[in-house]
Amino acid sequence: MYKLLKTCGRAKRGEFHTPHGVIQTPVFMNVGTLAAIKGALSTEDLEQIKCQVELSNTYHLHLRPGDKIVKQLGGLHKFMVWDRPILTDSGGFQVFSLTSLRKITEEGVHFSSHIDGRKIFMGPEESMQIQSNLASTIAMAFDECIGIPAERPYVEASVERTTRWLERCKKEMTRLNSLEDTINKKQMLFGINQGAIYADIRIEHAKRISELDLDGYAVGGLAVGETHAEMYHILEEVVPFLPQKKPTYLMGVGTPENILESVERGIDFFDCVLPARNGRHAHVYTNAGKLNLLNAKFELDETPIDATCDCPVCRRYTKAYIRHLFKAKEMLAMRLCVMHNLYFFNTMMEEIRLALDENRFPEYKKAKLEGFSASQRQIIP
Amino acid sequence: MYKLLKTCGRAKRGEFHTPHGVIQTPVFMNVGTLAAIKGALSTEDLEQIKCQVELSNTYHLHLRPGDKIVKQLGGLHKFMVWDRPILTDSGGFQVFSLTSLRKITEEGVHFSSHIDGRKIFMGPEESMQIQSNLASTIAMAFDECIGIPAERPYVEASVERTTRWLERCKKEMTRLNSLEDTINKKQMLFGINQGAIYADIRIEHAKRISELDLDGYAVGGLAVGETHAEMYHILEEVVPFLPQKKPTYLMGVGTPENILESVERGIDFFDCVLPARNGRHAHVYTNAGKLNLLNAKFELDETPIDATCDCPVCRRYTKAYIRHLFKAKEMLAMRLCVMHNLYFFNTMMEEIRLALDENRFPEYKKAKLEGFSASQRQIIP
Repeated sequence: MYKLLKTCGRAKRGEFHTPHGVIQTPVFMNVGTLAAIKGALSTEDLEQIKCQVELSNTYHLHLRPGDKIVKQLGGLHKFMVWDRPILTDSGGFQVFSLTSLRKITEEGVHFSSHIDGRKIFMGPEESMQIQSNLASTIAMAFDECIGIPAERPYVEASVERTTRWLERCKKEMTRLNSLEDTINKKQMLFGINQGAIYADIRIEHAKRISELDLDGYAVGGLAVGETHAEMYHILEEVVPFLPQKKPTYLMGVGTPENILESVERGIDFFDCVLPARNGRHAHVYTNAGKLNLLNAKFELDETPIDATCDCPVCRRYTKAYIRHLFKAKEMLAMRLCVMHNLYFFNTMMEEIRLALDENRFPEYKKAKLEGFSASQRQIIP
Repeated sequence: MYKLLKTCGRAKRGEFHTPHGVIQTPVFMNVGTLAAIKGALSTEDLEQIKCQVELSNTYHLHLRPGDKIVKQLGGLHKFMVWDRPILTDSGGFQVFSLTSLRKITEEGVHFSSHIDGRKIFMGPEESMQIQSNLASTIAMAFDECIGIPAERPYVEASVERTTRWLERCKKEMTRLNSLEDTINKKQMLFGINQGAIYADIRIEHAKRISELDLDGYAVGGLAVGETHAEMYHILEEVVPFLPQKKPTYLMGVGTPENILESVERGIDFFDCVLPARNGRHAHVYTNAGKLNLLNAKFELDETPIDATCDCPVCRRYTKAYIRHLFKAKEMLAMRLCVMHNLYFFNTMMEEIRLALDENRFPEYKKAKLEGFSASQRQIIP
């Protein structure tokens, strides 16, 4: 159940009540594809860096260790020892990324495992069954994530099918939630809006899926090649046609700048692999822009990554030490930077919520963006 | 200053007072070659797994990031944020491992960096200078670590030179500790006994180095190819000729069994890369022998690595989850196993100290060894 606490223009400040606790929104979900955050972060670490929601991937967990194994082990929460909310994607995005290995039909998608080439079929029912086995807090509907650019006739037909698939997802989840041996009988379902960059198709789709009265609604198929301006435009067009009193989720987005702009356009949920991936490559976020810790100028730098940050890494370690760890190929380097980066994102969301609470989001957003660009010299080329 | 609290046969229970706090002995030092424990363990993790002494490597830190850099950054303790004792080896072992790249003279050793082939010279003075720059708690003397087997005439000449080098080390450390800009002016020095498996050469050498009244004495050049029986025999012969009221250190040893046998023969300090290296390969220690977590039988195992262990890993995660992390190539797998293994070693040392305190070391040792071999099926082939 979503409770809209406050608005500021289209920006929303909400609370989403789930069987695994309340999520304060806007929120950034921390991505642990295979039931672990890359960079050797444990779920104990996640608790230290203000993570509210962990996100795992249906496709990857279906292949390894297998969703039936996870079910036998009591579901994802018990498996990875995390008692707060978990969102699982539907596998759609990964399946559709395997362009050369798949075939789409009305029933679903035939594709080959990227690990061993094994033939797999996944449709709406299969995706729901896998996510029910994983027992995540929130399941995502199985959709077709359309690449950009895409021809209008293809997009129209695909979106129609995604709607039919969504109806099948809802029906299957209702069935699964009623079964005796289902671990999370209150699993929630988010639908996904598609339509590439055709605003009218997206709006029509948004209206139709809104009628299904789901637990939340995502905008999918963005951040897949279009410009930022196109993405923001789509949000401006489509978000007004998604229920304001349900959480909205912009899938796979994005940079701190993207998040600030999208909150302004009414988005509640975000997720992105960027902070963890950048951290593993020594790229770290600060309130004055990104830094590349491999830069020689940090060799003797005794200050933390960000002097204004109170994450477990900045409270303890210097840039010089972390730079040395990267040079020496010590895994600890990655862990420290991933922890800092996720903390940075989670803290920015906390700041956004406070700014919304205190009716000063526009001022906060302006100051934050100015901070990022103030120190152009520090931005990674 | 070493305080002998209790003995049991030749086994010693002691307290070693250092400028960075008291070390309870017998102790196992946790190896962080490049100023970090491999497997993404932070010094915060080290505090959680009962680590008393961290060990770093002079040769490796001289090359990366450079001991002068570490000095400018305030020494190793400040660099890696660890305020308990640190022991640095002398670089001797690594230098002598580069057999094809080195040339030994009376002055020291000419060798080539394993990273970029750069020519480097290291003698007793250079080793002491590097270790003084690193500002470790305990510096090790620069010696020649002789491979086994070795011809008697070579060993005799080498040990003579190691003695002359030790005198130079002592003199240089006294000078360095008196300099105004030295970070740790109370740096301690341990001498190293050598002599391959020639007991008479080792005994003669032990007598001579004992006269130098150093802070502690190591037995070096063991665990380099001889049998366990030969190693134990050497300890029985030589330890009685090292000062009982100084700590003794068996370098590079070893397995839990080796440690129990060597404590019985009078050893206080141990170090070994084995628990961390094994952990990174899914091999974990338990009180019932070693396990290989990649074994298929653990796929659905919901128990911790060792039900009798209260380490941060066993309190939280199952074998099934850790096995999945290895299969999925998640770095967290290594971190969890390294943490568990080091905790296992550090806890065994705690148990040894308690058994010595309570005059039941022989019984403890017997029961522990029986436990390890009780479950032969679980031992890694």
